[in-house]
Amino acid sequence: MATEGKVIRCRAAVAWEAGKPLVMEEVEVAPPKSGEVRLKIAATGICHTDSYTLSGSDPEGVFPVVLGHEGAGIVESIGEGVTKFQKGDTVIPLYIPQCAAGQLSQLHLYLTLQAQSDGTTRFSCKGKSLFHFMGCSTFSEYTVVAEISLAKVDHMAPLDKVCLLGCGITTGYGAAVNTAKVEAGSTCAVFGLGALGLAAIMGCQAAGAARIIGVDLNPDKFKTAQEFGATEVVNPKDHSRPIQEVLVEMTDGGVDYSFECVGNVAIMRAALEACHKGWGTSVIIGVAAAGQEISTRPFQLVTGRTWKGTAFGGYKSVESVPKLVEEYMKKKLKVDEFVTHTLPFEKITEGFDLMHAGKCIRVVLQF
Amino acid sequence: MATEGKVIRCRAAVAWEAGKPLVMEEVEVAPPKSGEVRLKIAATGICHTDSYTLSGSDPEGVFPVVLGHEGAGIVESIGEGVTKFQKGDTVIPLYIPQCAAGQLSQLHLYLTLQAQSDGTTRFSCKGKSLFHFMGCSTFSEYTVVAEISLAKVDHMAPLDKVCLLGCGITTGYGAAVNTAKVEAGSTCAVFGLGALGLAAIMGCQAAGAARIIGVDLNPDKFKTAQEFGATEVVNPKDHSRPIQEVLVEMTDGGVDYSFECVGNVAIMRAALEACHKGWGTSVIIGVAAAGQEISTRPFQLVTGRTWKGTAFGGYKSVESVPKLVEEYMKKKLKVDEFVTHTLPFEKITEGFDLMHAGKCIRVVLQF
Repeated sequence: MATEGKVIRCRAAVAWEAGKPLVMEEVEVAPPKSGEVRLKIAATGICHTDSYTLSGSDPEGVFPVVLGHEGAGIVESIGEGVTKFQKGDTVIPLYIPQCAAGQLSQLHLYLTLQAQSDGTTRFSCKGKSLFHFMGCSTFSEYTVVAEISLAKVDHMAPLDKVCLLGCGITTGYGAAVNTAKVEAGSTCAVFGLGALGLAAIMGCQAAGAARIIGVDLNPDKFKTAQEFGATEVVNPKDHSRPIQEVLVEMTDGGVDYSFECVGNVAIMRAALEACHKGWGTSVIIGVAAAGQEISTRPFQLVTGRTWKGTAFGGYKSVESVPKLVEEYMKKKLKVDEFVTHTLPFEKITEGFDLMHAGKCIRVVLQF
Repeated sequence: MATEGKVIRCRAAVAWEAGKPLVMEEVEVAPPKSGEVRLKIAATGICHTDSYTLSGSDPEGVFPVVLGHEGAGIVESIGEGVTKFQKGDTVIPLYIPQCAAGQLSQLHLYLTLQAQSDGTTRFSCKGKSLFHFMGCSTFSEYTVVAEISLAKVDHMAPLDKVCLLGCGITTGYGAAVNTAKVEAGSTCAVFGLGALGLAAIMGCQAAGAARIIGVDLNPDKFKTAQEFGATEVVNPKDHSRPIQEVLVEMTDGGVDYSFECVGNVAIMRAALEACHKGWGTSVIIGVAAAGQEISTRPFQLVTGRTWKGTAFGGYKSVESVPKLVEEYMKKKLKVDEFVTHTLPFEKITEGFDLMHAGKCIRVVLQF
C-alpha cells in the first residue's frame, strides 16, 4: 500500500501526562513537510533521558508527547526539497542535528526540540496534537524528523543493535576519544557502569589507556565492566573515605582522565577531584536533574585540572554515526554486548521497569 | 666584605601575627644549605596573595613569616652542589619550582612552601625562627631559595620592573597564551582589570583576539585597560541583568574565552556562563578566599564549555621566565606600564595601602 503523501495511522507509546505510564495508542503521523523525512522505526533503545522527561522532572518537558530518541529505521517518504535521502534508506535519527553552521551552537534548542521547524507537530491522537521529543520521537512505528537530524547508514546493519549508536554508546565512547582525547598509557576512572560508562570504558581502551578503573555502588556491574575493558573496579561502599581520596591514593596522585556517567552532581565533583593536579581532565556525561548544581573549590581548577562536558560524545552527528556503524560492522566497536534484553514494542513499560531495576545494560524494543 | 658562608644581618618586613601590620626588623639570614641559593633582593612587587596571607584568611598561613613572592635580585652565595648559579647572577625567585619530573605535580606543596627542603628555615629574628613564604620571601634584603625555584635572567634587565614577571604579569599573560590558547580572531572577556587582568588582555592581544571586552565595577580602570588592548569595556553596574547575559547578548551567543582575574567565586561563575556553547573556555586566574566554592549547572559544561584554571600561566617556570624577560627587553611585552608606584622598601605598608585602595596597578619596592 502506498502511504506516501498520506497520513499514516500506527501504534505509538504516548506520554499523556507527567508521571503517568505510557499508553499504547493508535496515532496519526502526518506526511513530512519541506526538509523533513518520515521513517518507519525498526527498533529503539530506552534511555534514562526518556524516563527523566516522563517523570515530569524536566522543567522543559511538555505533554502529551511521543518520547524515544535512540532508534533506527527505514525512510518511508521524503518532504519537499529533501535531497540526501530517499525511500528505503536505512537511517538513524539524531537528537543533535548537524547543519552547515556546525551543530553545537543550537544544542539547547534541539535537545528540547518538541516540534518541527515550522512550530507544528506531525503527531496527533484522538484529535489532540502530540509533541515531538528531542527531534526524534522513536517510540512510534512511524515518525517525522528534520533532514538535518538524520544519518544514512549501511543498509546491512542490524537495526535492533545500531539504534544504540543514536545516543548512549556514541556519547560514552566519544567522551573518551573526542572530548577527553584519552592518551595511550594513561590512567582513567569511569564513574557509573551502565551503558554510558561501559561505552566510556570501551573508548578509553580503544585510546590505549593503561589503567581503567570502574566505579559503581552495585557490584553486579563489575564483571561486565571488566569484560568491556576495566582493569580494576572499586565500590565506594567498601571505603570509609570519599571515593576521590581512594582513587588519588590508588593512582599515586590522581587519574589522568575521569568520566561521570551517572548524572549525580556529587559524583561529578568526586570525578573532578579524583583527577591529577596539573593535567587531569574530568568529563561530565551524565545528565543531572533540573536545578542541581555542581561545585568544587576553585583551587581544584587553579592547580591545573580541567572540567568539561560532552554532548553526543563530541561527534558531528550526521557524518560520524555512519562511520561508527562501519566500525561496528568491522567488529572494531562493541554494540551487540550492550543489548541485554530485546522486547516487542508493546512491552515498553516492562523495558522501563528493567532499566529502573538496573537489571539491564540496554533494552531494545523491536517493532 | 665577604659574606659567603656567614649569617647576614639585614632588614626584613616581618609578619609576626595574622591581621597585624608588618614590622621592619633586623633579621638573620643563614647561609644557603645544599641545593640552595642566597640572594640579595633588589626589588619586589606587592601582590594580593601577600595581603591575603597577612590578613590571616589563609588557613595554611603560618606566623611569624617573611612574605613576598614577586622579586628579583642578585645571587650572593650558593650552597653545596649548586651548579646552575654563581655569585653575581641576576635572578628571579619562582614560587613554583621546575624540576626534572615536571613542576605542577608538587604545586600544592610549593604554593605553601614555608621552609626549605630539610624542614628548617633560614630566617630568624630576636631568637625566633621565621617561616618562608611560597619558597620566596622577597620582603627581605636577603633571602634563601631552592635552586629549582630560581630563574637566571639577563643581567641588563631592570630589576625594579622584571620582578613582576615572577608572578602577576606572567600568570595573566600565560593564562591567555598557554592555558586558554586564545586563537586569532576570537572574542575574549577579561573580568577584573588589575595587574592580572591587564596581563590577560595583553596575552589576548598578542594571540590576535579580535574583540577583548574588559569588565570591572570601577570605571577608573577602563582607560588603562583600553591602553593595554581592551576593545570594549563594560561595567556590570550599568546593567540590571547579570553580566553573563549582557556579554552573551553583546557577542551573539557568548565569548570564545573568558578570564576571571578577581578571585570572586560569583564572578568565576559569570565568566564561565558568558562563554559560548559548544566551545567556550573559561580560565580562573584569581585566587578565591579559603572555603569558598565555585558552582554552576552541569548543563553549562555538557553543552560544550570548558572550565580551567591556571597557576603561573601554564609556564614552566625556570625555562620560561628568562624568555619572558627577553621578550620584555625586545619591547614585545609590556612591563614598565604595570609599575604605577615605586617606593623605598621601608614604605611597604604604604604600598599595601595603595593596593587596597585600588589606586595602583602594581607597587614595586626598591631596596
